[in-house]
Amino acid sequence: MNRINLCLGIHNHQPVGNFDFVFEEAYQKSYLPFLELLEKHAHVRLALHCTGILFEWIKNNKPDYMPRLRKLVEAGQIEMMPGAFYEPILAVIPDEDKLGQIDKLTQFVKTHTGYEAKGMWLAERIWEPHLPKPLAQAGVKYVVLDDSHFRAAGLPPEKLLGYFVTEELGHTINLFPIAERLRYSIPYQEPQATIDYLRSIASEDGNRVVVFADDGEKFGVWPGSYKHNYEDQWLDRFFNLLKEHREWIHILHFSEVLQKFRPVDRVYLPTASYREMMEWAMPSATIHRYEEFENKLRNANLFEPYKNFVRGGFWRNFMAKYPEINNMHKKMLLISRRLNGLSTNVDNDKLQQAKDHLWASQCNCPYWHGVFGGTYLNNLRYANYHEMLQAEAIVDELELLPARRQNGWVEISQLDMDAAGAEEILVSTPSLNVYLKPQIGGSIFELDYKPKAINLSDTMSRREEAYHRKLQHLPQPAATSENSLFYDWYRRVALVDHFLPPDTTVEKFASAHYGEQGDFVDQPYEAQVEPGQHRVTLSRRGSIWINQIAQPLEIKKSLTFDPQSPKIEVAYSIKNLQHEPLSLHFGMEFVFALLAGKETNRRYNFPQHAVADCQLGSLGAVEGAEAVELVDEWLGLKITLAAPQANSIWRFPIETVSQSEAGIDRVYQSSVVFPNWKFELSGHDDWNTKLSLTIT
Amino acid sequence: MNRINLCLGIHNHQPVGNFDFVFEEAYQKSYLPFLELLEKHAHVRLALHCTGILFEWIKNNKPDYMPRLRKLVEAGQIEMMPGAFYEPILAVIPDEDKLGQIDKLTQFVKTHTGYEAKGMWLAERIWEPHLPKPLAQAGVKYVVLDDSHFRAAGLPPEKLLGYFVTEELGHTINLFPIAERLRYSIPYQEPQATIDYLRSIASEDGNRVVVFADDGEKFGVWPGSYKHNYEDQWLDRFFNLLKEHREWIHILHFSEVLQKFRPVDRVYLPTASYREMMEWAMPSATIHRYEEFENKLRNANLFEPYKNFVRGGFWRNFMAKYPEINNMHKKMLLISRRLNGLSTNVDNDKLQQAKDHLWASQCNCPYWHGVFGGTYLNNLRYANYHEMLQAEAIVDELELLPARRQNGWVEISQLDMDAAGAEEILVSTPSLNVYLKPQIGGSIFELDYKPKAINLSDTMSRREEAYHRKLQHLPQPAATSENSLFYDWYRRVALVDHFLPPDTTVEKFASAHYGEQGDFVDQPYEAQVEPGQHRVTLSRRGSIWINQIAQPLEIKKSLTFDPQSPKIEVAYSIKNLQHEPLSLHFGMEFVFALLAGKETNRRYNFPQHAVADCQLGSLGAVEGAEAVELVDEWLGLKITLAAPQANSIWRFPIETVSQSEAGIDRVYQSSVVFPNWKFELSGHDDWNTKLSLTIT
Repeated sequence: MNRINLCLGIHNHQPVGNFDFVFEEAYQKSYLPFLELLEKHAHVRLALHCTGILFEWIKNNKPDYMPRLRKLVEAGQIEMMPGAFYEPILAVIPDEDKLGQIDKLTQFVKTHTGYEAKGMWLAERIWEPHLPKPLAQAGVKYVVLDDSHFRAAGLPPEKLLGYFVTEELGHTINLFPIAERLRYSIPYQEPQATIDYLRSIASEDGNRVVVFADDGEKFGVWPGSYKHNYEDQWLDRFFNLLKEHREWIHILHFSEVLQKFRPVDRVYLPTASYREMMEWAMPSATIHRYEEFENKLRNANLFEPYKNFVRGGFWRNFMAKYPEINNMHKKMLLISRRLNGLSTNVDNDKLQQAKDHLWASQCNCPYWHGVFGGTYLNNLRYANYHEMLQAEAIVDELELLPARRQNGWVEISQLDMDAAGAEEILVSTPSLNVYLKPQIGGSIFELDYKPKAINLSDTMSRREEAYHRKLQHLPQPAATSENSLFYDWYRRVALVDHFLPPDTTVEKFASAHYGEQGDFVDQPYEAQVEPGQHRVTLSRRGSIWINQIAQPLEIKKSLTFDPQSPKIEVAYSIKNLQHEPLSLHFGMEFVFALLAGKETNRRYNFPQHAVADCQLGSLGAVEGAEAVELVDEWLGLKITLAAPQANSIWRFPIETVSQSEAGIDRVYQSSVVFPNWKFELSGHDDWNTKLSLTIT
Repeated sequence: MNRINLCLGIHNHQPVGNFDFVFEEAYQKSYLPFLELLEKHAHVRLALHCTGILFEWIKNNKPDYMPRLRKLVEAGQIEMMPGAFYEPILAVIPDEDKLGQIDKLTQFVKTHTGYEAKGMWLAERIWEPHLPKPLAQAGVKYVVLDDSHFRAAGLPPEKLLGYFVTEELGHTINLFPIAERLRYSIPYQEPQATIDYLRSIASEDGNRVVVFADDGEKFGVWPGSYKHNYEDQWLDRFFNLLKEHREWIHILHFSEVLQKFRPVDRVYLPTASYREMMEWAMPSATIHRYEEFENKLRNANLFEPYKNFVRGGFWRNFMAKYPEINNMHKKMLLISRRLNGLSTNVDNDKLQQAKDHLWASQCNCPYWHGVFGGTYLNNLRYANYHEMLQAEAIVDELELLPARRQNGWVEISQLDMDAAGAEEILVSTPSLNVYLKPQIGGSIFELDYKPKAINLSDTMSRREEAYHRKLQHLPQPAATSENSLFYDWYRRVALVDHFLPPDTTVEKFASAHYGEQGDFVDQPYEAQVEPGQHRVTLSRRGSIWINQIAQPLEIKKSLTFDPQSPKIEVAYSIKNLQHEPLSLHFGMEFVFALLAGKETNRRYNFPQHAVADCQLGSLGAVEGAEAVELVDEWLGLKITLAAPQANSIWRFPIETVSQSEAGIDRVYQSSVVFPNWKFELSGHDDWNTKLSLTIT
């Protein structure tokens, strides 16, 4: 009788910062009923991966789950498969953090289930060829990856019935290919279809191994899947069939396969993830080209036979596609460098706390975007920044720099924080981080409010996504009157200097449907740093274009930082560099990311002005307002931007349109505040104003 | 007037171990005339990369070249572009060696040309995403790569007119895309075609940068190219045209572009090399599939528009495709680990010598095979092993282990030397390394003779190459009578135990056209190590198959190593594990790689037997010979294999058929020596014999 060995694996995950009700629902619809079913089917053995985030939630909220799990582990029915605790994209975090996170989940698993783990789950199966070294150093014996990874290395499908050995600089680990065929049949075809397939690949020598491993959320959380798997009992029927055919379908743990069989061969996998991920990582226009190609191949019946040669891009390009993701990643690296560089004799408890916050900030979900909301979900980005800023606060404390022992201080450093090849200016005070980018508009690209550990600049810009062209019916916009998509031509950051044509309205400005007159928005500024004065001055000699003629103009903006309190004063000076007088409509854009645009406890306030719609998602212009407050009772903070001489203060929300499992979402990202002035400037004359930004 | 910036780069290289006459010819036909032409065309500015191997040859053999080069560098006409000294595949050597090799060539360039290098040439443009860190640590500011690398990341061609920034864990470097279009037009289309193309991409703002960089050997060494470029003056005409159009074609150095322009964008490149390399790195059968697909796409006019989505494999798989390459790589890593782990207070001169030998052994050429002979060229493999064994000898000396201070010693260690996931047995004496692989036939997969720093097992096996099916007229075989291709079903190593069917002749055995009766060739043996006795015993209870019935049989072979001299004694015992008697034709295969099969100073000698054809490439059987000698006067060594009781000693060469730039080569790889016995073995009886292997 022909026989086959079958390895099963389940990966359960919820991101850092997900809502409690989402955890609860996923637990009730998936994690718990799956466990119950396993208790019923002692014959079904599998490897279980839960991310540390999820395990901690379960441990804290469902006290009977872990003991029940331990029983199945002790019975040999479940092999635990850890991973990096907070499910980071392992390839792009520092090696110290890789090892630390893997160790943390391995220890957790050992403590709560008694299992000494041999393998691990790799988040999103993002493979890079240098991973075997840190994985081997962490004691990992095996990883499971998609069979498409192996086919990209040129291996024929018939060879993928077993495991492979790979290495980096002599450090070896074993790799199991997940059969795509099984990911499509389980649980989407009748259970018998999987049995039939297993029969077709069973062999006389019984040496073949086939792997199914997939997201646990497929079984209960994804739309329709609870009914399918539990009410309609797909899983129960499948498990019964496996038992019925146990004479020739041998369910083995991955670790047992390593003991029992030799590797099929050596292999080196290229940079890879699953097919869709590699598509999403490309620029939107290239995704269109790729889909075009794939369609043509399908029509010519060339896709299925040759798809292993047809490939998209590379995961890391999410950091090129979205500067906001790069920002999060590089800020994380900055803190990791400081943390991992700390002296070894600092307070160990605090050090561990800082590491834990840092690791939590590495959770992969907001570092990419595909069919899941990912980086467009502001609660996930907020959570990651919130964690990393808490880590930073502890590092600030542990570094014990003499300069910071005083009551107030302003630190100004210059370094290539975002790894773009040029230096930024990083200003830090006891209550703020203000990161300035002279090369791009002399703008503030990160504004962290330390007492609440929040990055107030944490907004996405509005970009064309490949799937936008498929949208016919958009969700209703929150604040704009038209049902259309707006795209930003520059990254939404703060202190962006605009010159508007005379007829520009707040609606046009908000929808990026206006003609920028100046060349200041994304062009380089000169920077002058005066540490003693706690001051940074940014200046640019640029032009505004009127009737296609460049009119030379200089902007100089001086930022002075308060050593004691979260306050920045900005002095602006605009100089007409020519004889002709100029008629200007000027303003500087601020952006504040406050998580929700339609809640009553988060609102605008214009002192001495009654404004009807004060939601953070509102659009409008308040003439003669001298200041604006953004009050967030949920976060417990108030941002006050004072611009005493402004003619008007405009406001509008940045809302993105992005896809998720559930469909298309319109997501509030941030509120733009735009104090602006209309004035005449004689030849060689200058104009000056002052603003202040305070957070309390 | 529309303008364009043009960067030019030339890469010159000869491998470690190449013949002196090849260096000389390449110098006369390419390196020298190119320099002369540059002296004549002061307007043509370019970046020059010569590998350290080539530079040292030039310095030692052509004393006026370096001063002339220095003059062009000082005039600003040439920007030097170093690299890793011995042109390794940078991604697969240890970081210490990466930094050391880059530093060595950078210092060489500085000493001999005065140039402080900013960029480097990356061997074979083999990119992996973790490279920016060591590159940045080595002070490298830029690397040039194929534009196909960038297109694989999803970038559209129109964006590739400039340079990009990339990073690993915050360490940044800049990447220039080489325009494939220019690699095809220079020098293969009329010079004006390149000018026309440059005109088509020139722009009003003059901010675009286009790069040509390619092998210098295209200009003079490759077949027909000397006539084309120099006699027919293609290069001279091209350089004249560049001068004529200098008003709008601005030739800039790469380093000047970095100064003058900002990067186009951030990018992360996947694992990549040029298109052909990624094809060659796949298994032969997959190459067939790939070519099939590419042909279908071309016929449907889908290849050119969508080729950026069509991709082959990954360079590292040359180590999976050819276990011999893996052997070389892992032996190199073993020595590198020992070397880089030495105490810092060892003799620094010797340490540097060892490093230099190690680095030389990392030269990429024999680590792969495509259109160049590469790993099939035994002189290149010999050179790399020769270098690494010299490094090892110094490390042996510097490690100063007490056990090695005695006159004689035998060290036996067990470790996973070849990174296959199981331990091998490494035996070392003052004059030999003998590496045993219990898992595969209890064989000797590496036999190093230390006094001559040669790996005597350094043979390729005969494998199907994708291009073999295109061969209609094969080069004449050296020793076999048929004009056909033979493929080995196991790796050619030593001490391989065979049971042959009665009718097997040496011709059939040599061509692998016989039915192996035993299951000992590539199956696992048990190993027993007795360090005190200087002995390793390998045994397997296997079977021989006669009339499809398995007959149980045990082989036990004990190797005893001489602590003083290069001698191994092997005692064989074969036991019939059943009642029935067995009629056996048994022998153990040895393989000796001695570089040439048809030279008179390298030959077989059968004491007391007159044998007509004694070349190392000869095939035959000597009945009743008690020993065989392989005498190599060129290397100055003699291998004596004594098998006093053998019925016959067979010999035949392993010759491979491989492609090179010049066509198809039949290459002598090694000589197989096969002492064999015919005997009857009663039920439960055993048979014993002794052999000895001595090298002098």
